[in-house]
Parts: sequence; C-alpha cells; structure tokens
Amino acid sequence: MLFQNATIITMNAARDIITDGALVTQDNRIVALGKTRELLERYPDEETIDVDGKLIIPGLIDTHVHLAQALIRGCADDMELIQWLCDRVWVLQGNFTHDDGYASARLCIAEMLKSGTTTFLESMLAHRYGFDGIAQAVEESGARACLAGIVMDIGTYATKDNAMHPGMIESRETSLLGVLDMHSKWQGAANDRIHVWFGPRTPGGVTPELYREMSGYARQRDMGITMHLAEVEADKIFLQERYSLSPVDFAESVGLLGPKSVLVHMIWLTDADIVKLAATRTTVSHNPSSNSKLASGVCKVPQMLLSGVNVALGCDGGPSNNDYDLIREMKLAAILHKGVTRDPLIVPAETVLEMATINGARALGLEHEIGSLEVGKKADLVVIDLNRLHTTPSPNPVSSLVYAATGGEVDMVVVDGQVVVEQGTLLTMDEQEIIEQAREHASLLYRRAGIDIKPKWPVR
Amino acid sequence: MLFQNATIITMNAARDIITDGALVTQDNRIVALGKTRELLERYPDEETIDVDGKLIIPGLIDTHVHLAQALIRGCADDMELIQWLCDRVWVLQGNFTHDDGYASARLCIAEMLKSGTTTFLESMLAHRYGFDGIAQAVEESGARACLAGIVMDIGTYATKDNAMHPGMIESRETSLLGVLDMHSKWQGAANDRIHVWFGPRTPGGVTPELYREMSGYARQRDMGITMHLAEVEADKIFLQERYSLSPVDFAESVGLLGPKSVLVHMIWLTDADIVKLAATRTTVSHNPSSNSKLASGVCKVPQMLLSGVNVALGCDGGPSNNDYDLIREMKLAAILHKGVTRDPLIVPAETVLEMATINGARALGLEHEIGSLEVGKKADLVVIDLNRLHTTPSPNPVSSLVYAATGGEVDMVVVDGQVVVEQGTLLTMDEQEIIEQAREHASLLYRRAGIDIKPKWPVR
Repeated sequence: MLFQNATIITMNAARDIITDGALVTQDNRIVALGKTRELLERYPDEETIDVDGKLIIPGLIDTHVHLAQALIRGCADDMELIQWLCDRVWVLQGNFTHDDGYASARLCIAEMLKSGTTTFLESMLAHRYGFDGIAQAVEESGARACLAGIVMDIGTYATKDNAMHPGMIESRETSLLGVLDMHSKWQGAANDRIHVWFGPRTPGGVTPELYREMSGYARQRDMGITMHLAEVEADKIFLQERYSLSPVDFAESVGLLGPKSVLVHMIWLTDADIVKLAATRTTVSHNPSSNSKLASGVCKVPQMLLSGVNVALGCDGGPSNNDYDLIREMKLAAILHKGVTRDPLIVPAETVLEMATINGARALGLEHEIGSLEVGKKADLVVIDLNRLHTTPSPNPVSSLVYAATGGEVDMVVVDGQVVVEQGTLLTMDEQEIIEQAREHASLLYRRAGIDIKPKWPVR
Repeated sequence: MLFQNATIITMNAARDIITDGALVTQDNRIVALGKTRELLERYPDEETIDVDGKLIIPGLIDTHVHLAQALIRGCADDMELIQWLCDRVWVLQGNFTHDDGYASARLCIAEMLKSGTTTFLESMLAHRYGFDGIAQAVEESGARACLAGIVMDIGTYATKDNAMHPGMIESRETSLLGVLDMHSKWQGAANDRIHVWFGPRTPGGVTPELYREMSGYARQRDMGITMHLAEVEADKIFLQERYSLSPVDFAESVGLLGPKSVLVHMIWLTDADIVKLAATRTTVSHNPSSNSKLASGVCKVPQMLLSGVNVALGCDGGPSNNDYDLIREMKLAAILHKGVTRDPLIVPAETVLEMATINGARALGLEHEIGSLEVGKKADLVVIDLNRLHTTPSPNPVSSLVYAATGGEVDMVVVDGQVVVEQGTLLTMDEQEIIEQAREHASLLYRRAGIDIKPKWPVR
C-alpha cells in the first residue's frame, strides 16, 4: 500500500515531519517514506490510498491498561482508593467469568484501536479473566499487545486490613507457573503481535521470594515485567515499615529494575529513586487521568524527564479514567504539570507525543520495531483527520494533535500492515455487537456481585 | 416538538432524572416534561422526535469564551504568559479586521454548538473584531450569548513593561461608550438570545474611575460585568502594591461584585476574598484547561464550593485551551482538584454538571430562563448519544457524561426551540465553509502580523 498526500510525523531520531508525504508498506513493514511525487514514481504498482492532506503518525502505545476494567467503567466514581478497590473493583473482578473477560477485552481493544492506540501493555491479567480468551481477542482484533499475566501469593493490598475478594486471590502455582505456561503458548503468536509479560501485584500482594523467582524467569526468557508502584503514599510507607526501603530500592532488591521493566504510577518517590530509574533504564508509565481521579497525587514527570527517565503514557482503566483514549491522555499529561508546577514551558506537546510513541516502544523493548515511522519498522500507523472545527486552524500539527484533538479524529488505523480501522469504522470487529455484549455481561456481572450502581440523583 | 424515549437529566431543584422520558416544546419554551407514554397521550398532535434511549441534558453554558481566539488556535503553545500575550496573542489580535472577527466567531460558535454549548459569555469583545459582525454571527448561528464589550483606558497588562499592541488599545470613548451603543442596539435581539455586557480589562488596563463609571451604567441598565481577575500572581501583587487591596477587595472598591458579575480565573485569592464572593453572590468562572496550560495555578474550587460561591465553567480560548468543548472541560474540572488536593471525594461529577448548567445560568442572571429542563423555561437542550464504545457500559449517565464523553457524542442541539444540530450536523451554518474561511483568514492574519508558527521539529 502507498499512502499519499499526507503530513507525516515520523518520530524518527531527527523527528522529521514530511509534508506532501507518502509511505509505502509491504506485508507488515514500512519499505519507503518520502515525498508523494517521488514515491509514486518509485512504486508505480502499489495500491494507493489518498489520505487527502491528513496527518499520519506512528501507532500510539498505551503502556498501562486493564482490559478487564472496561466492563466496569464508571463502577466507582468519586470514591476513596481503598474503598474503590476493596468494595467495588475487586468484588466485581472477583466475580468475572472467562466470558466477561473476553467481552471486556473486546470492548477495550475496540475503543483503543478506534482512538489510535495500536499497541498496549495489559497489566495484571488474572487467571479469572481467561488468558486464552483475551489473547484470542487481541489476535482477532488485529491489535498488538504485551499481556502481563498476574503474579501473586498474598491476597491483600499493602496491609492485611485491605483483603482482596476471594475470587481474585491466586497462588504462586496458578499465577507464576500459569504465566510461564501462557508464555510458552502465546509468545510471538499472531505474527509476533502478542507478547507475554509478568504483571506482578504491588508488594503487599507478593512475597520477595516470589518476586525474585519471577525476575529469574524474566531474565531467562527475556520477558518484560510491569508493576504498579508508589501509586499512593501508603505504598511507600508500607515498604519503608516492612523492608526499610524506598519504592525503587525495594524494586531493585527483588530484581524489578531494567530496560524491560515498566513501573506504573510512580508518584511517591525520592530523588534518589528517580536517579536510579534513569540509571537502570527502567520505564515509568505515567497515568495522569487515573492519578488525578483517584487523588493519588501528581507524578514528578518534569523531574523524571530532566533526569533522563524513559516516561511513557497509560490510560489505566474504566473505573479510574474512565476512557481509553490516549490522545485525550496526551493533553492532560501536557497541561497538568504546567499548572501544578506553575512552569508553562515544561512537558511540551512534542515531549508528550514522544511519551505516547517512541518512549512507549522503548518501554516494551520494541523500539527497533515500532514507535516511529521508519523504513524497516513494522507498519503500525494512524491517520488523523484535522479537518474539523476544533482543530482549525492548525499551524502546527503536533499542537493540534496534543492540545485540540481527541481519539474521535482517528480516520484510519493500520497494525502490522493490516487496515483495522477505515473512515473511523472498525473492520476487524462489529462495534454494535461489542457494545451490546458488554452491556449484557456488565448487567449480569453487577447482579452476580450484588452491586447496584445508580445515579446519585433521584430517578423517576 | 415532543422528544420521546429519553433519559432526561433535568437539573431541576430536586435534580430529578426521568427515565423513559419525554419533553414537549412549543415555540421557544418547554411546556411539559414526564414519562413518554403519559406525554404522548397528553400531546397527541405534537411532531415527535424519537431520541431512542439517548440522554437529554440542558444546553451547556460556557461562562468564559474569547470568540476572536478561535482563529489563533495553537498560536502560542508551551510559552510563558506575558510572552504568550505580548508577543503572540495581542500582536495577532491587534491585526484583526472585522472580517477576521466574523470568521473567528463563526468557527468558535460552530464548535461550541456542535459540542453542546448553547449559551456562552464572550469576554472582552474588542472594537477591532467588529461587534456588529459578531452579534450577527450569533444571530445567524442560533446560539444564545452574552457579549461583553471591552472597557479600557490604559494599554498595558499589570505593568507598563507589558505594553499592548497598538491595534488593541481603546479609550474610554471607544470602549465604554461603544459598549453602551451596542447595548442600545443589540440587547434583547434575536428573540432575546443576545444580551450585551461589560467586559473590562484587568486592573492594569483600566483606571478605577472608568470601572466606577462603568459599574454605574451596569446598575442603571441591569447589565452584567465580566472580568479576568487574579489569573496570575502578578495580578495580586499589582493590586496590593498599587491599591493596597486584595483582588476581591479591589473589585468591591470599584463596584465589580454582585449577582451579575462573573470574575474569571480567580486563582490568587485570600480566604477573605472567597467569603466575600459568596456573600455578594458573585460568580467565579473556573477555566481549568487554560489555568493548567498557561501555568497560572490551581483555582481553589473545593474551598469556593464549601463557602457557597457560585462556580461556573469556561473554556477560555484557542491559544490557552485549545478547544471550546465544555464536556471535556467538565472532566478536567472533576479530576484536577482531586489529584492536587489528594481528596478523591471533592468536586464530584454531579457538582461539575451543575457548574456547566444551572450555575452558569445563575452567573448570567438567567437562572429563571435556562440552565435546567423545567416547564416554562426556554427550550435549550442537548441530546447526547452514549451508545459508543467509550461510554459503555453506563450505569450512571452523569458519570458517563462527565468522565467518559466528549463533545463528539452530541447528537442534537436545540436553542430557543430551534434545532441547530441534528445527527451531529450543524443546520444553521455550513461547517466546511467555516473551516475553509477560517484557514484563509488565519493565513492572511499571520502574514499581516508578521508571525510564522511552525512545528518545532524539522519539516522536510
């Protein structure tokens, strides 16, 4: 395919933007990038797709997603985190069936693809949700994913008082060994679109011994690890009291730092923690909507960037965000830190676009395959239509994308050379069917869990 | 018209939500609200519109907009405020022609209507932009607006060092007397959809004498006043040094407080200031995107709400937000304060929807006419389609609207009984023509002003 007449934001090392640009894909790779006229001459036999002045950007990469939380979107608004977790999210997730997991994953992946996310890192994929069904949903959808299976051997969050719902609890055998099974089965599946990672629970839910055993396997099999850390102050206090270590020092002590480690939220850190993240090339997945809505605090992103930490972006989940639109998340990442620090120059639009593309690729150990539009890389790209009222005029397309657009401006999405969204319509899944099945599964799930969410205002 | 099969969020005093609801309009008023079956029986001859399970909410009210800034969207990203103002925004606005003002107003109003804003308060409408043309654009669009004409007699911002572009400077005669002329000409026009207010500059741009003269006219003619105040710390320092008064005490000293006063941004206030705002029933227009992007700081919204201040919402302008989508603004208003204060219970979704509807109506002195769906009120309403991936499931429509939706979910908009948006399409204006004219005018304006905005990355 030859995509012509585009403005291409390549995100290559020089950060070139190509006007009147074209891009040629063959099978699942980008084979040429350049001016439209030149590439039409070089590739006269390619099928052409005229994007008519629209923007082409690399497929966006969401480094923190909970697929199983799409089905429970809006289940716990304006609540305190522990109550949010123990009384709502865990009770609902503890009642999940494999069919619920599949319905939720399809809803979530469809939303992400339609809003320009081509690759995502699923965190803490529990046995209860059905790993096979979720991997199958990824395969069918055409998306690219790293699926981090849950690892845990304690059923609490930080303290014994915050006990998990019994349905959520797994052992070393079901979790660690289960993930290894899934790795053997799914790693590299769907033309290498599916990778399997470890997704351990926070330190309250995992013994140091299990972390170390898992880290050993991760090194042996070159598997990535992603974990929530230092999301709330209680996490930091717990690690200090239990192990006399800061969050990052604890992570280091059990083998969790390194270039294929994605630590999520990372709000309650010391200055030394931040230096160590940079030195070990550990990624921080910044989730500004979730951190704001759950009142977790504000991640020190400007300081991390200055220190050279690889910061990527994440939407988190349906009860904490409540959407999976990484373009909307980019805007919040760009404006939040300016307001809080009162420095309007920090975290500019360009930096945020790096977080959502090439930094995300680096987070997943895939920077040689995705995250920018370059010859030889996989053909993961998104066409954005800025011919809208709210993106007019557009003197700088990076600004329009970050500050004015939403996922609603996504026109076409290509993953691994396959068109999965065309003219804003999903080709690989039936959107209306997904919506109806999600409603049905959500309704049954709420009933099973004995939770009834109602508007706070009187319903007549 | 009889709108049937809706979930109606009435925003009436009891905050009733009506399921299987219907709403009947005659001319420009709501004449009935209730269950669909009952109203179909009572009004058998009305033309019916089946909204098919969608949401109906009151038209949203944006209490701080700069129409003339839509044309300069993205002209000054990631810049410091004074540089943003003196080197970019004022230079461009100082070069505006009346035709630019008209093109910008149409772009802005079209964007607002399409995203569910039916009423807005335009701030500091300058002579340079063409008051008549802008009022005409409002009339043609079908929107409802309070147009606050600029009042000023000094050409600086806070200090003499921050001088305005000569094209922006007006005198007492052109500004104050000009607004009075426009009030005589336009107040109550377009079936009372257009009101004329005073929109004075901040204290650096207006003498106390002119403020007092203006306040006198405002009382005499029952005109509203809107002004930026305490947006940045420099504003507070300036008032302290020049007048030895806090921002709100200064506003009081020149007659700027009261039920038809909308003070905008209001970040740098004392506790006593906040108490006085509540006591005088002065409205604060909270603009979280603008305050964040420009690094102005964080408005003390939770404290204001506790103190009983009427807090409404505003999108501000194209260079400071950079969109005019009040639904997106609602989400930020709901999550920003939680993250900053680390209290997840404050500023819940319901409160934010009040800010964007009934509080906005109160701000404009129109709480008996708009801001809620009640019998006798004007027929300003918005139909929202939550049958989307990112708003599924939706156990609580208020949550879906505030935390998951965007203006992209607006299906139908009715203002003053007239359908102005249907199936997401503007009926009163040609969207593509507006986009093309805005591009053309923006391009000429940038050339005239000698400003060239380029991407920061190399363009090949």
